[in-house]
Amino acid sequence: MNILIASVGKPPKGWMKEGIEEFVSRLKGKFNFEWHVFKNDEQLIAFLSKQREKIFLDPQGKLLSSESFSSLLFHSIERGGATVTFVIGGAEGLPSVLRTEGFLLSLSPMTFTHQMTPLILLEQIYRASEIEKGTLYHK
Amino acid sequence: MNILIASVGKPPKGWMKEGIEEFVSRLKGKFNFEWHVFKNDEQLIAFLSKQREKIFLDPQGKLLSSESFSSLLFHSIERGGATVTFVIGGAEGLPSVLRTEGFLLSLSPMTFTHQMTPLILLEQIYRASEIEKGTLYHK
Repeated sequence: MNILIASVGKPPKGWMKEGIEEFVSRLKGKFNFEWHVFKNDEQLIAFLSKQREKIFLDPQGKLLSSESFSSLLFHSIERGGATVTFVIGGAEGLPSVLRTEGFLLSLSPMTFTHQMTPLILLEQIYRASEIEKGTLYHK
Repeated sequence: MNILIASVGKPPKGWMKEGIEEFVSRLKGKFNFEWHVFKNDEQLIAFLSKQREKIFLDPQGKLLSSESFSSLLFHSIERGGATVTFVIGGAEGLPSVLRTEGFLLSLSPMTFTHQMTPLILLEQIYRASEIEKGTLYHK
């Protein structure tokens, strides 16, 4: 199963990078990860035109429990032929042309920094995988 | 203004500790921070009996936007005589006896790890302070 993250702007560094790497390494074996960082919306849109199943992180998106997110993730992977792409817009948010191209997901009614979003997302992907396995991580 | 965090269990370490320290250092000058880590609920309850204004982190709590959280924070600090205490329960959640002792706040309908909650909370406190100042951090 493949999880792609497509984002615009600078990649996280320092402790945020370390946190992301921790969850990516915990998910190894189950998921292949690819992170594509684009300089602008045009590059992002071109890349996404080749991706089948997309989930867009958006403050106006749908709020889900971790259990519902787990269902969404595994259904999306299935529909996407073993691949799903998470999209994180730049400082100005998602280009409006993309807003009908996939599921719009909100992590919280609170605004999180652009840099912390991938960290929180990765922990939810790890949690989703533990929920599916039925382990004690999520109880 | 004083912000106290009272939690049960082990304090965060590694990259999570670094992240928390980054936000605490950015908030210096405006807020004094104290973090009290307790071994069990009994110690937590005894400590909280001496605190006036409390906000409890709880999955069943109220979801707020960052703007509403900013209002809540500054009103609570005012009501608390310049001090507010945020309470993060242990792995089993908050002891039920505390659930009527203050505002119940949820960061997201998703479940976050116990260890990441203070990091996300600290970023929201920093954001709340920037919202009150009217800076570009939160736009």
